[in-house]
Amino acid sequence: MDTVPENIARADCEGMDAADPLAQARRRFVLPDSTIYLDGNSLGALPANLPERIADVVSREWGKDLVGSWNTNGWIELPQRIGAQIAPLIGAEADQVIAADSTSVNLFKLAAAALLHQAPRRIVLSERGNFPTDLYVLQGLEHLLGGRMALRLVERDDIAGASADGVALIVLTHVHYKTGEVHDMRAITKAAHDAGALVLWDLSHSAGAMELFLDRDAADLAIGCGYKYLNGGPGAPAFLYVARRHQEKLHQPLSGWMGHAAPFDFADHYAPAPGIARQLCGTPAVLSMAALAEGLATFEGIAMAAVREKSKRLGDLFLDLLEQRCPDAGFEIACPRDADRRGSQVALRHPHGYEIVQALIARHVIGDFRAPDILRFGFAPLYSRYVDVWDAVDRLAAIMADASWREGRFGIRAAVT
Amino acid sequence: MDTVPENIARADCEGMDAADPLAQARRRFVLPDSTIYLDGNSLGALPANLPERIADVVSREWGKDLVGSWNTNGWIELPQRIGAQIAPLIGAEADQVIAADSTSVNLFKLAAAALLHQAPRRIVLSERGNFPTDLYVLQGLEHLLGGRMALRLVERDDIAGASADGVALIVLTHVHYKTGEVHDMRAITKAAHDAGALVLWDLSHSAGAMELFLDRDAADLAIGCGYKYLNGGPGAPAFLYVARRHQEKLHQPLSGWMGHAAPFDFADHYAPAPGIARQLCGTPAVLSMAALAEGLATFEGIAMAAVREKSKRLGDLFLDLLEQRCPDAGFEIACPRDADRRGSQVALRHPHGYEIVQALIARHVIGDFRAPDILRFGFAPLYSRYVDVWDAVDRLAAIMADASWREGRFGIRAAVT
Repeated sequence: MDTVPENIARADCEGMDAADPLAQARRRFVLPDSTIYLDGNSLGALPANLPERIADVVSREWGKDLVGSWNTNGWIELPQRIGAQIAPLIGAEADQVIAADSTSVNLFKLAAAALLHQAPRRIVLSERGNFPTDLYVLQGLEHLLGGRMALRLVERDDIAGASADGVALIVLTHVHYKTGEVHDMRAITKAAHDAGALVLWDLSHSAGAMELFLDRDAADLAIGCGYKYLNGGPGAPAFLYVARRHQEKLHQPLSGWMGHAAPFDFADHYAPAPGIARQLCGTPAVLSMAALAEGLATFEGIAMAAVREKSKRLGDLFLDLLEQRCPDAGFEIACPRDADRRGSQVALRHPHGYEIVQALIARHVIGDFRAPDILRFGFAPLYSRYVDVWDAVDRLAAIMADASWREGRFGIRAAVT
Repeated sequence: MDTVPENIARADCEGMDAADPLAQARRRFVLPDSTIYLDGNSLGALPANLPERIADVVSREWGKDLVGSWNTNGWIELPQRIGAQIAPLIGAEADQVIAADSTSVNLFKLAAAALLHQAPRRIVLSERGNFPTDLYVLQGLEHLLGGRMALRLVERDDIAGASADGVALIVLTHVHYKTGEVHDMRAITKAAHDAGALVLWDLSHSAGAMELFLDRDAADLAIGCGYKYLNGGPGAPAFLYVARRHQEKLHQPLSGWMGHAAPFDFADHYAPAPGIARQLCGTPAVLSMAALAEGLATFEGIAMAAVREKSKRLGDLFLDLLEQRCPDAGFEIACPRDADRRGSQVALRHPHGYEIVQALIARHVIGDFRAPDILRFGFAPLYSRYVDVWDAVDRLAAIMADASWREGRFGIRAAVT
């Protein structure tokens, strides 16, 4: 942020928006006028073309064309088509990505398949404080498999140094949901491979906001969320990635009919489809899939390098402004100060975090709170503006100047640098 | 059908519609004027109120209220609320039913949980020719569990007589997807319990069309589809039922955060929610859930006994008309002739089944074909009319009178009586 003056004025931010190569992308969304929405890392905003598209799917495709739409309107191909939309956002060739189920269900599929493949290795390594559903699903799989799987959790700082010897699978979230800290996908993958382990990446807080290079980084497996930066709507279908070299070797246990080589033969015996399609399970949720396809259309023609660059600048701007405007308000910066090590969010700690987030919401600034004391503010580079960041910190400063918790001030500390 | 004259005229069917206590329910749906839709057993028709409701969920709840809708618009409670809508349709008290995931995923959850509970018993019994995804998912579970599960398939006719001694779980589809034949839930459940086995029912072709009495019949576990007779839209979320007495004992392995006792505590260790909520896994698909809720609203104020009565009459009418109008067309009746043993569909066999279904579709009669030779016609009593059945058979008769395959005629035989 070396071009930003010491005391950043709102006019400076207006200038940044005017010069922003992604500024026009905001028109692809509907956002309430009065709201400063910094929670696209939790639920992406509504794409402007989506209401009309969903109305068409409902009234014409379903209402008029009825069951024939599985073929005539291409419903049956939605998982693959959406996978092909996601692939370029994560640095993958298209036939390795598919949309299906939820992130949690997809994690179960791939972790189970990887374990079966890696037997007799049975250790699954993950980090304490990983996104809870990832840990919960791994615990569920461990319980089901009895002695054939052992989940080992280590501290985040110990992941890179942990030996992968004897480890079957490492499961990590690329961008931490609370702190926004980024794992080094390439280095961790290389170390794992050297020790014979596979790595499964949760890209929920990365896809659509970070530049990702799954193929280049020799990634094995990944899952991710459709309703955050991919703008697919609440509870949108998730996606998964299986590197081509693994596709025929992995047998996921949720082997429903949509993953069958010939689902409409109605044979008694399961025969997995070739390629990525074997990762499907049940019938695709068409309405939610159609919404996700429209969410992904907001990325058309946009380079992820530009998205990432803006994301870093928005985060730096927030932290610069915070330091200028709220130096004594008791915030601790809980995300990396270095933008290259930070996802598309900032995280702050404050003992009154919950109340502060509520006060911001009352002033139409939407961030969120994660127990016990984290305030999160996410930046969706397609629609977040520099003035939004300025206004958000301005209102935050007003709240802090005013609040009864000011007595407890203890400056800003950087917990993760 | 003892009140029906020997030769049924269209006017007779108009009279039946005029006297139909469910006739008004058809107004709750949008159906294309020119189409006779007899495929609600595959995809239910569009509820009339649904487009407006979905538009509101998209534009107001998502677009304006954004992430706050999880609480303010009750998104987080959709699985339970929808479960409570489904419960009375299947004869269950509300806190035993929840909407989630797909039918296939739900089968995996409950079958795995039941097996863990029933260990060291390891045999899972099902029938050959069961709906394929049910068999495929059981095969996936068997593969994952290695020697801790053994899937045993027997012929349908042998199910009732098969000893459940040593069997952990029996998995059956209540109404067969091809033949429409109904299993005796009460008798099979009782015999299973006497032998220490549990029973998991797939209600996909029953819920919304049959009278079901899960609680009365001492059912253990059930799953079912949201997009057939429940009118939830293509790929709608599925549902599952766990009898209250089993809820705290069963640990399903897809233990995602929505099934946690306190999902927003973000603790590292999974602690299952009390009651039915532990059957949830990932974030609910809100758009698809909202559509399912509206689909279920079409049942408001309607007694399932009346639905079942009309369903039987529609099926009998179809078969009576078929026998009158197409006696020599080469059809074999592949469903039970006795309405009490038949779900809400008829099934016919014909060596030219595929071509006949295509010819019907060209004449705007929508049934479907299931390989190798089955024609299916489903009756959704909320919107299927007696005149629809008359018109469908009338067009079928015209096709058969005209067709080159008439040479192969061999009369109507009842394969399943």
